[in-house]
Amino acid sequence: MTHTAELVSTGAELLSGRSINTHARLLGERLGRLGITLTRDTTVQDDLASIQAALRDAATRVDTIFVSGGLGPTNDDVTRDAVADLLHRRVVMDTDSLNRLRERMIRAQRPMTPARERQALVVAGAHVWPNPVGAAPGERIQQDGKTYFLLPGPPPEFQAILDEHIVPYLAQTLGDTVALRERVLLVHGLGEGDIVHRFDQASFPPAGITTAYCAGAGRVEIRLHPATPETADALLDEAAEHVARMLGTAVYARERVELEELVARRFRERKQTLATAESCTGGLIGARLTALPGCSDFYVGGIIAYANEVKERMLRVPAALLQNEGAVSEAVARAMADGARAQAQSDYAVAVTGIAGPGGGTAEKPVGLVYLAVAGPDGTRAFRTIFPGNRETIREATCRAALRHLLDQPGM
Amino acid sequence: MTHTAELVSTGAELLSGRSINTHARLLGERLGRLGITLTRDTTVQDDLASIQAALRDAATRVDTIFVSGGLGPTNDDVTRDAVADLLHRRVVMDTDSLNRLRERMIRAQRPMTPARERQALVVAGAHVWPNPVGAAPGERIQQDGKTYFLLPGPPPEFQAILDEHIVPYLAQTLGDTVALRERVLLVHGLGEGDIVHRFDQASFPPAGITTAYCAGAGRVEIRLHPATPETADALLDEAAEHVARMLGTAVYARERVELEELVARRFRERKQTLATAESCTGGLIGARLTALPGCSDFYVGGIIAYANEVKERMLRVPAALLQNEGAVSEAVARAMADGARAQAQSDYAVAVTGIAGPGGGTAEKPVGLVYLAVAGPDGTRAFRTIFPGNRETIREATCRAALRHLLDQPGM
Repeated sequence: MTHTAELVSTGAELLSGRSINTHARLLGERLGRLGITLTRDTTVQDDLASIQAALRDAATRVDTIFVSGGLGPTNDDVTRDAVADLLHRRVVMDTDSLNRLRERMIRAQRPMTPARERQALVVAGAHVWPNPVGAAPGERIQQDGKTYFLLPGPPPEFQAILDEHIVPYLAQTLGDTVALRERVLLVHGLGEGDIVHRFDQASFPPAGITTAYCAGAGRVEIRLHPATPETADALLDEAAEHVARMLGTAVYARERVELEELVARRFRERKQTLATAESCTGGLIGARLTALPGCSDFYVGGIIAYANEVKERMLRVPAALLQNEGAVSEAVARAMADGARAQAQSDYAVAVTGIAGPGGGTAEKPVGLVYLAVAGPDGTRAFRTIFPGNRETIREATCRAALRHLLDQPGM
Repeated sequence: MTHTAELVSTGAELLSGRSINTHARLLGERLGRLGITLTRDTTVQDDLASIQAALRDAATRVDTIFVSGGLGPTNDDVTRDAVADLLHRRVVMDTDSLNRLRERMIRAQRPMTPARERQALVVAGAHVWPNPVGAAPGERIQQDGKTYFLLPGPPPEFQAILDEHIVPYLAQTLGDTVALRERVLLVHGLGEGDIVHRFDQASFPPAGITTAYCAGAGRVEIRLHPATPETADALLDEAAEHVARMLGTAVYARERVELEELVARRFRERKQTLATAESCTGGLIGARLTALPGCSDFYVGGIIAYANEVKERMLRVPAALLQNEGAVSEAVARAMADGARAQAQSDYAVAVTGIAGPGGGTAEKPVGLVYLAVAGPDGTRAFRTIFPGNRETIREATCRAALRHLLDQPGM
């Protein structure tokens, strides 16, 4: 049994360069866990005709249709009217939503305006779910064998209604018989092409297994799926083992997991602490680590040593070293890591210094040149890399490399 | 004359929760500058039938169609075949692309494989553009009055081909007569509903002007557009002035600009320096400032003081203060800002300490409670806020508030 769904995302801001559409990713991930495949996202501008055309088309292909955005108070919020009109229903005021909205405005000490009241309007006959973090409620409308889910456009509101109401509703409706069967391997140091080449040479995958790849952010995700419902779990396991043997140490995880989460697990297991010293990444490594709830049990903090004076003063990097070797050098990376470890009194410290560009590069030290160092109980190790790309990609790649080197430490 | 275009994004990873589709935002922004409106993005899975259906539909609505993804070396890269088959063309090996690919592999010291060679395949008759940062080239195919642009899926490659080849091509083709006319105002402290309410009361906008809103990340963007090509620029200017008068100090910018860029301008103008002390944001503020090229002319660095010991040792926050007031308190925020300013010897320092959750909240100090402090030559000011949302949104909102308070300093 294959379950499919489509998303219709509404909003001129998603097509004009103002906002990224994050709904498809979130919805695809949540539906995937339920064994439902999101087969299409149609992003349209917020006018009645475009929304209705997209909904009509979607209904020819699938039975479950999600619609995001256009439930707000302004005149370009027309989703509810579009859906109502399409389904020959009226738009009605939802008393419960209106009451919640009034309470919200009182708490926020803001006036209740006619524009705001529009957010309590719903399609007649809809099942209405309260919005835990915003004003516009979520709605479920069933008609002609189709189910329409209406969600507000702001990502936190979309997510809250999805997670608190729709996912539990779908899980209950579908039962737990449809869990998505897949095996995931994360690989670094090999391109998609390298992997395919090795697979081809080994006549992989075997019958009954299909492969899919997703390359990005310095790693390739390999996914193995059953080719048919008859494929046994044992065959999937065996295929995953085969991949692990073929690719060896390039496989760094057997599940979908972020690098920082792996770092966190390793440090927590060993009850060791970590500090950071960042120059070109300017806080990115710290920001990524502290995005993890409860990271304070291993991450103590660090120093953003952007100016040379800060490297000297806060990390005790000798001025002579900065002068003779330059701020972007192996010696300075080592001194930064040692300095951070000493200042923070942590078990480990990772330091990065590099040229993120666009300016500042020379023939000898080009844009993309990065030195990393990890200081730990067993001494300090340094690494030199040249990353391709622009300021953003170089900084991201540096951040990733720092986390990877933390995982590669001896004894870790 | 209205120019419109559509995007067809291909790739299972965009619908399965693995990747965010960033193409629509980038393309929409670039096309917008050229006066072209991106009217739809259809994201489909990477199978021949879905891609062709989306392309066929798009061609019924617009003459310019962008297609992203599916040009890589693996068996799920079928875009080129889908387009060729749809247009009754063959797929051919592009010699120039193949040569570039071979040179690339030699430089990267990787073997040239049959899978890799596939990336030099193009639709017969296509104009081929080299990929400055990756393997698969871009293609332009013209047929039956329609133009198809094929771009690789990885965002840096999509962007490089768009910016280096397609935007210049379109600019030349269209001439410079179509520049998008709009006025932008960025507003904080007011919701979309508040703004609409004030506009309604003032019978705004006047005839000839249309308004659009985009709310997100703690601000509302108001856009004013000509209702018809006849609307004069003077009327747009006048309407923008009217909005500025109506909303007063809530308007913090009259252009589309990020807060960190405004902070950078202010500090550069005054030749003053800035340091950061971050607890709950863990480096986000530093990361945002250092995303700006050349930020070293005002941003010296900072301290990520996650553990209390780091607050004491590196920021000289008195242990007694931490004990008596708690790490999340006005007194500690002030001490952190003062400490960072002293340690970094900067003109200003901004400090944040808060409870980002999900754990750690109490009735007295709930999740979302944040104290901010700005230390400067005129003393230290502190602010208390409770942000709604989850760990991610609280951290983002804190980062934003810190940047805003830096702009609000007396004498700045």
